[in-house]
Amino acid sequence: MNGEKTTGGLGRRRFLTGSAKLAATGLLAGGAVTASGIVRAEGIPKELPDHSRYLGPGVTDEPYGVPSQYEAHVIRRNVEWLTASAESSVNFTPLQDLHGIITPNGVFFERHHSGRADIDPKTHRLVIHGLVDREVSFTMEDLLRFRPVDRIFFTECAANGGMEWRGAQLNGVQFTRGMLGCAQWTGIPLKTLFDHVGLKPKAKWLLAEGGDASALTRSIPMEKALDDCMVAFAQNGEMLRPGQGYPIRLVVPGWEGNMWVKWLRRLEVGDQPWYTRWETSKYTDLMPSGKAYKFTWVQEANSVITSPSPEKPLNGAGPYIIRGLAWSGHGKVKRVDVSTDGGKNWVTAPLEEPVISKALVRFYLPWRWDGKSSALLQSRVIDETGYVQPTIAQLREARGVHSIYHNNSIMTWLVNPTGEVENVQVA
Amino acid sequence: MNGEKTTGGLGRRRFLTGSAKLAATGLLAGGAVTASGIVRAEGIPKELPDHSRYLGPGVTDEPYGVPSQYEAHVIRRNVEWLTASAESSVNFTPLQDLHGIITPNGVFFERHHSGRADIDPKTHRLVIHGLVDREVSFTMEDLLRFRPVDRIFFTECAANGGMEWRGAQLNGVQFTRGMLGCAQWTGIPLKTLFDHVGLKPKAKWLLAEGGDASALTRSIPMEKALDDCMVAFAQNGEMLRPGQGYPIRLVVPGWEGNMWVKWLRRLEVGDQPWYTRWETSKYTDLMPSGKAYKFTWVQEANSVITSPSPEKPLNGAGPYIIRGLAWSGHGKVKRVDVSTDGGKNWVTAPLEEPVISKALVRFYLPWRWDGKSSALLQSRVIDETGYVQPTIAQLREARGVHSIYHNNSIMTWLVNPTGEVENVQVA
Repeated sequence: MNGEKTTGGLGRRRFLTGSAKLAATGLLAGGAVTASGIVRAEGIPKELPDHSRYLGPGVTDEPYGVPSQYEAHVIRRNVEWLTASAESSVNFTPLQDLHGIITPNGVFFERHHSGRADIDPKTHRLVIHGLVDREVSFTMEDLLRFRPVDRIFFTECAANGGMEWRGAQLNGVQFTRGMLGCAQWTGIPLKTLFDHVGLKPKAKWLLAEGGDASALTRSIPMEKALDDCMVAFAQNGEMLRPGQGYPIRLVVPGWEGNMWVKWLRRLEVGDQPWYTRWETSKYTDLMPSGKAYKFTWVQEANSVITSPSPEKPLNGAGPYIIRGLAWSGHGKVKRVDVSTDGGKNWVTAPLEEPVISKALVRFYLPWRWDGKSSALLQSRVIDETGYVQPTIAQLREARGVHSIYHNNSIMTWLVNPTGEVENVQVA
Repeated sequence: MNGEKTTGGLGRRRFLTGSAKLAATGLLAGGAVTASGIVRAEGIPKELPDHSRYLGPGVTDEPYGVPSQYEAHVIRRNVEWLTASAESSVNFTPLQDLHGIITPNGVFFERHHSGRADIDPKTHRLVIHGLVDREVSFTMEDLLRFRPVDRIFFTECAANGGMEWRGAQLNGVQFTRGMLGCAQWTGIPLKTLFDHVGLKPKAKWLLAEGGDASALTRSIPMEKALDDCMVAFAQNGEMLRPGQGYPIRLVVPGWEGNMWVKWLRRLEVGDQPWYTRWETSKYTDLMPSGKAYKFTWVQEANSVITSPSPEKPLNGAGPYIIRGLAWSGHGKVKRVDVSTDGGKNWVTAPLEEPVISKALVRFYLPWRWDGKSSALLQSRVIDETGYVQPTIAQLREARGVHSIYHNNSIMTWLVNPTGEVENVQVA
């Protein structure tokens, strides 16, 4: 589209007729002529709008700002039937309305098991004990005395897309891939804290425990803990929101969101995993044989087209941008391919910088729709390990249909001749 | 600090005595013993806190989330005497409480000249006219059909620190360097739009006009416009806030914030600058001779220590992290030096990744305070052009004291023996 020189292709683009001078003073009083020569005055104000004539509110009335009233549709949403209560449930990030790779804190998805804890940081403690030289209880002030790091990582619930395993077709990006967000996290590397307390020779595993009423606990191998995990206190520049574990949470880059323990109060060091309920009866992939994988920690490579999508239908023929996100828990996204015919033909989409390991990556691909044909939009990511995002059929063949977790299959959006878009599954 | 093995240095760090098992069940019922052997039970709850015993609110009550009630002090603030009315004024980013390089949209500083316009994007138009092949009025839907880019840049008001020129000593990071923010901006490069409308051979300058009641206008050389400027519609993942120019603003990387025209409604292409009031009587640097520089667009290299700072005093002897930000309108930050003795001795501080051209860069430097001595904390940035951040004395020597704008001098925080911190100017 960038090089387009014809005037016929953009029906909604208007050309001023002699009103340039008026426009130059801000007085858009004239009509307008489209490329086809038809006067189209609608939508162009006859006189200056109020916001160009009167003072707006000053700087004192919004100490903490909020989005425009015209963006009230950009909110987290939940699925009523999904879990038994609002306190043990999930809401979804409105990916279809977001841009870039930073997920705003206000719409960052939440998954709670006992609701959103509200903790006074002055009384909060992080205890480290077990196979360490010195058992320590840190205050928040203590933690802030260690050298922090800032890192951009995605986090994704293991159950993202889980409702699709058996064929449910939730009609939207938000409900099928919205248990996902990406932020710049600021925190103290676990390595720094363990250097401080001293690890005993048999220290091979870590138990992380949350301070909410569910006391969620997960086992993490020490090798991962010392590699890139951190105790985070800030997200996207400000202190964590309560729904993200304020005042501290664990960050476990590339691994399932359930392990990013929120309201973190305890780290126990041991020599073997604990096999808690959160890693046995829950968050475990059940195979067709009736057995389950012991641990499936990594969120494998995944991608989704966020627009066009069920929430972002097409409005007539013309140029569009296919917008999407890709990510991989194994490292960097290497390539994203896009298909408009259900996977028969693929075009590689350019990736927007920065491409950060274990972070969301944005891709944009210009596409022209004729305004009448159906299309089947798909994206497929390949990460730096060479792993290729699978189809749902491939996933089902490997794992059957008993699973809930780790559905990273290719999504398919059916563009109807009307411009409406549906979530479908193709062979 | 990372390698510290002694137990004497961290007076506020507590060691559990036999309560590890209780801690393991979350029951922090025991007392605690400090490194010096004194029992200190205060602050450690005798029983489980309510948030560990009862359900919190569910996922349905915060469609758009907010910070913790315990972070209510992290807000934009304004200086009452600074301008005549709240509608034509400025608020300041609470840099002292922020982390990483992303400035949250809720606390991103605002500078308005006629208050915060509230524009319905459905009726908004961007007109491009003048020395172009085709004059065009774009709707928001039109703009979203062009291929966007995502870019992380700082923006800073030219008057940031302006009150310090003549020696005012506003006591805080927020009021002396808080007309500053950094975000991931999503928008359409001006080059893309000008490729679309076609530039005539004499097109050398651009006039950008805002749609609020002040109709702020600035001239921009076409070379800069085609280099890295964009019409942005999103900031940190979501649509611009009204205070940042919703639905569209200009992004002029590295150049003074006044040029990042908000509520953008018009781009006129010409062959010479317009010399508007916003680039002549205002936003111009007055020299000692009584003459003024014609244009001073670039925000030169600058840095500030955000903690310790007047808002972030020290709490007793022990290890601290000197936290700060550095930036340069000319490109990448190359190095940041930190002094604790008013500029006599300097230590180079490690820079946190990512180091992005024309974006904020975070630095952290561990520092131990003895709890009784005074200190003079300073940071000094050097950018990739070799430019070194000047002292206020150097700036005054070059430009006198009539200026308001472009004060990028080294700030000095005096640490008193009490731990209180003051803004001072040293020779």
